[in-house]
Amino acid sequence: MKSPKVPKPTIKRLAMYHRLLKELREEGTPKTSSHEIAEALNIKASQVRKDLSYFGEFGKRGVGYDVENLCLKIQKILGTERIWNVAIIGVGNLGRAISHYPELEKYKFKIVAAYDVDKRKINSILLPGVPIKHIKELKNKNNDLGFEIAILTVPSSVAQEVANILIEAGVKGILNFAPVTLNSDDRVVIENVDFVISLKTLTYEIVSKYVQI
Amino acid sequence: MKSPKVPKPTIKRLAMYHRLLKELREEGTPKTSSHEIAEALNIKASQVRKDLSYFGEFGKRGVGYDVENLCLKIQKILGTERIWNVAIIGVGNLGRAISHYPELEKYKFKIVAAYDVDKRKINSILLPGVPIKHIKELKNKNNDLGFEIAILTVPSSVAQEVANILIEAGVKGILNFAPVTLNSDDRVVIENVDFVISLKTLTYEIVSKYVQI
Repeated sequence: MKSPKVPKPTIKRLAMYHRLLKELREEGTPKTSSHEIAEALNIKASQVRKDLSYFGEFGKRGVGYDVENLCLKIQKILGTERIWNVAIIGVGNLGRAISHYPELEKYKFKIVAAYDVDKRKINSILLPGVPIKHIKELKNKNNDLGFEIAILTVPSSVAQEVANILIEAGVKGILNFAPVTLNSDDRVVIENVDFVISLKTLTYEIVSKYVQI
Repeated sequence: MKSPKVPKPTIKRLAMYHRLLKELREEGTPKTSSHEIAEALNIKASQVRKDLSYFGEFGKRGVGYDVENLCLKIQKILGTERIWNVAIIGVGNLGRAISHYPELEKYKFKIVAAYDVDKRKINSILLPGVPIKHIKELKNKNNDLGFEIAILTVPSSVAQEVANILIEAGVKGILNFAPVTLNSDDRVVIENVDFVISLKTLTYEIVSKYVQI
């Protein structure tokens, strides 16, 4: 089912299709089409069909897609049919905001641990059953972390250092919110969320739109 | 200088080059090359050259790029050589985290206003000179908002309604953190930041990496 040659934008759109299909399923809609999906997400229907074609045949021409079936298949492709245990590393405003984000649980991302270095925060409770621990405790975990994904919300100045600790401790994936490019390692997958980059994309588009070319 | 046909990933990478060049400038590095830029960002040098080629000639073969010059040119392309006035719409944990994010000021995004609907928050101070106002005040602005970009950090259930108010009030761009696809409008540019999508991309990559294909 999986091919390593699938472009990353396709994966991001699959995740968007997944969200939409979940919404359609909750509404009780049994069928959809590439046109409906495309319209809801402001993209082209041909793009939807091309993205799905990487993973086989999902619909019948003229009949469309079975919402339930397509939703489950995409879920499987994305690896989100199971629960993923997640840790918040750095419990500032951003870490707190993320840990209370309702979408996480909806998509089976379960926050099971939280780490910081601020003594005032250590041992306080971030979420029920999730006390904040000191980052140095990660060093003694010997690949028995209890989570596979770390959401990194520490200041840029220490992001690489903390990422190294996580990699040594055996984390499989890091979602990095610090606006720095982390030196990667074959053992770990790193995905960056940088909203200043998105802001600059926005200003580019505003300028392109309002300035005569 | 600008072309409407530049692909969006190119713009996102330009924003990444801009950050890197700013760092190099601060370190006092006078020259760089597509190879150096590519290595720092884990991409290909040919990609860097292709991205820059959309906007003309920036370097000389064998000599590389002048850091200061390239940084200023990309800044101009992205529209970030000037200050952009920004409003935070929805002052929860996420809105607060963003408003205190040091990178914003560094890249000349200035938070000048904040809006919420929670009576307990109205008139409290988010940042020096930035009291939190009620969203209904946006309705009387008559295109005299005082900001061009809105960072939307309200719950998904009201995101479209608030976006409509912002569009009517004359905002030029919305950076949407709510995990819903907003119905757009020709008058406004919308850019989405959805970290659950990024999490799903991460799990896809972890699964692809660890599971035999």
